[in-house]
Amino acid sequence: MSESLPFWTALVRIEGLGIRGCHKLIEHFGSAQAAYMASLTELESCGVPARVAQAIFGQACLKEGEKEVQAATEAGCRIIAFDDEEYPALLKQIPDAPLVLYVRGDVTVLSQFAVAIVGTRRPSAYGSSVAHRLAHDLAQRQLTVVSGLARGVDSAAHRGALEAKGKTVAVLGSGMNVIYPRENKRLADEIAKSGAVISEFPLDTGPTPENFPIRNRIISGLSLGVVVVEAAEYSGSLITARLALEQNREVFAVPGNITSAQSFGPNHLIKQGAKLVDQWMDVIEEFPAEVRMQLLPPAEASEGKPIGSETVTLFEASLTPEHKAVFEALRPDQALFVDDIIQASQVSQPRVLAALLELEMNGLIRQLPGKNFIRKL
Amino acid sequence: MSESLPFWTALVRIEGLGIRGCHKLIEHFGSAQAAYMASLTELESCGVPARVAQAIFGQACLKEGEKEVQAATEAGCRIIAFDDEEYPALLKQIPDAPLVLYVRGDVTVLSQFAVAIVGTRRPSAYGSSVAHRLAHDLAQRQLTVVSGLARGVDSAAHRGALEAKGKTVAVLGSGMNVIYPRENKRLADEIAKSGAVISEFPLDTGPTPENFPIRNRIISGLSLGVVVVEAAEYSGSLITARLALEQNREVFAVPGNITSAQSFGPNHLIKQGAKLVDQWMDVIEEFPAEVRMQLLPPAEASEGKPIGSETVTLFEASLTPEHKAVFEALRPDQALFVDDIIQASQVSQPRVLAALLELEMNGLIRQLPGKNFIRKL
Repeated sequence: MSESLPFWTALVRIEGLGIRGCHKLIEHFGSAQAAYMASLTELESCGVPARVAQAIFGQACLKEGEKEVQAATEAGCRIIAFDDEEYPALLKQIPDAPLVLYVRGDVTVLSQFAVAIVGTRRPSAYGSSVAHRLAHDLAQRQLTVVSGLARGVDSAAHRGALEAKGKTVAVLGSGMNVIYPRENKRLADEIAKSGAVISEFPLDTGPTPENFPIRNRIISGLSLGVVVVEAAEYSGSLITARLALEQNREVFAVPGNITSAQSFGPNHLIKQGAKLVDQWMDVIEEFPAEVRMQLLPPAEASEGKPIGSETVTLFEASLTPEHKAVFEALRPDQALFVDDIIQASQVSQPRVLAALLELEMNGLIRQLPGKNFIRKL
Repeated sequence: MSESLPFWTALVRIEGLGIRGCHKLIEHFGSAQAAYMASLTELESCGVPARVAQAIFGQACLKEGEKEVQAATEAGCRIIAFDDEEYPALLKQIPDAPLVLYVRGDVTVLSQFAVAIVGTRRPSAYGSSVAHRLAHDLAQRQLTVVSGLARGVDSAAHRGALEAKGKTVAVLGSGMNVIYPRENKRLADEIAKSGAVISEFPLDTGPTPENFPIRNRIISGLSLGVVVVEAAEYSGSLITARLALEQNREVFAVPGNITSAQSFGPNHLIKQGAKLVDQWMDVIEEFPAEVRMQLLPPAEASEGKPIGSETVTLFEASLTPEHKAVFEALRPDQALFVDDIIQASQVSQPRVLAALLELEMNGLIRQLPGKNFIRKL
């Protein structure tokens, strides 16, 4: 444990400072320790309330900070401070990034490419199974699955990732000594074995309701994007989605029957522009090329052979000979006029037109202006 | 019946001419009768095959055309020709508009604002009930519901509209003397009582598979937009959606569980940009103001009180007093800074922030840059 840690754990406990106040000080002084060493005048010049400046100048909370660091070690946690090299870079970008992270498990997992899967604590059977499946499929492709260890969708997502022998991260709304809900204690242990269980709250913080929306910014902050699986009208998951947008992260949603209350949230998000997800590819497709390159085996991710290629092959296999002939007449690098396709495929005009429609519907080809067609990459 | 009708019914029967060829002639001569009166040279100059020009010059199919007009009268149908005043204006816009429409029922219904509801012949219980409900709700708002009289989603849509005492139009893929599927004969009779059953095919044309994709362009052509309720991967409904796009009509889709094969189509369309629909308002919202004005009672459609108003009132009623205070602090005509909202609402900062989030999630307010908020119209 670094010697500066007690200062960090102390600073976040100063009453009336808040996370924004903390960041003002860190921006000015560079570290918690430096803030504790500063003069009263200098502290006050940072724009924190006089009462708070006086508290820091009076070394407030330092004892508790030291005790907390000690207790963390005893509880088998590491504490990562904001200036730590291991502090996850993506999380650091958000304006109200936590100053300390308590981590049980593998700290390095927090810096790997991750996607959050969140949703209601009371999912339908459909929601649970979709969360499990999607987490499984994404974890299998080396994406870390971040969620909140809650009942329902969160638990299903963590379990799906574990089952795929992938990495998963649980972000708590309580301190590390207070796993909530209790029934998930064993799940938390499982997660910490290969991934990480983390919290920004002091070790013994209870799971009070106001902690969860605060916690949600870390779930989205650690992730390239957030997938909402099921969420009712008034739902923390919708807040997580909103935070993700504010953090410039992707927002994804799994649609569901409009007659299901739990699908209100995702369907609503899709109306507002979230990307509809019905399989793992839909998520990875949205990520920048350099991310995809690292996530996918080289053959799949290499230039000119994008994400979709795997499906193309599947589709190709399922095509009728006629559709195949039309598809094969098309080229990925040059648009062909419909008459040339008819000639090249040796298929009759109406059948070529029907085949082109279906191929386009299946996302295999694209129509360009003037009845020109090209294979999709 | 107009004297020119036999020429129209004759022209569409000329072998090798096709609908595009018909339109070439109509563009040149103005009417079918004029084409039949033209010289061979003039006919050939229109770019139709010599064989076809000779046939028309030889008055081919005129006898059949006359018989067909007679038979239509006996069958209780009217025939509307392309140059008829009653020919629906929206349908006339499409490049391959039919030259004749056989109509049983009320011809004027074809010129009213309409939306198509289409989908699989083998819907889930969910699909049937959603199609029925949506058709009911839209028909209740004076929108005519167009569909294809097929089993499944089509039938549910027609029935929903009828139950709302609204108008509905069935576009057949067969001739008017061949109602298909037979079990829908009574439904067709019901539809014709207040709406219309129509076809472009000669009276005794059988329901051969190739007719249905051709028929689909009329379903979308009569409509401001097409709603796809359930559709499997290879589905005529997806073709209708595609035709709607080509005709510059709106495409809507009702999402469904990604584990349901029947929801593949709509979910896929949404991915490609179709608008997600979970209630009738989502459809009407997309239409131009002048359409909405005519569909909705004046109070709902008037300037400054748009479509959403009804829901706003509903939502307002369900708000907590705190959320209501925050909502009421906001104005529809001017953005307020968050601090001013806190002051105006007399609610504490964290609760105001939470309320703003929820109000925004519910689509009641909008956040503008710099933490400014405004009521949504």
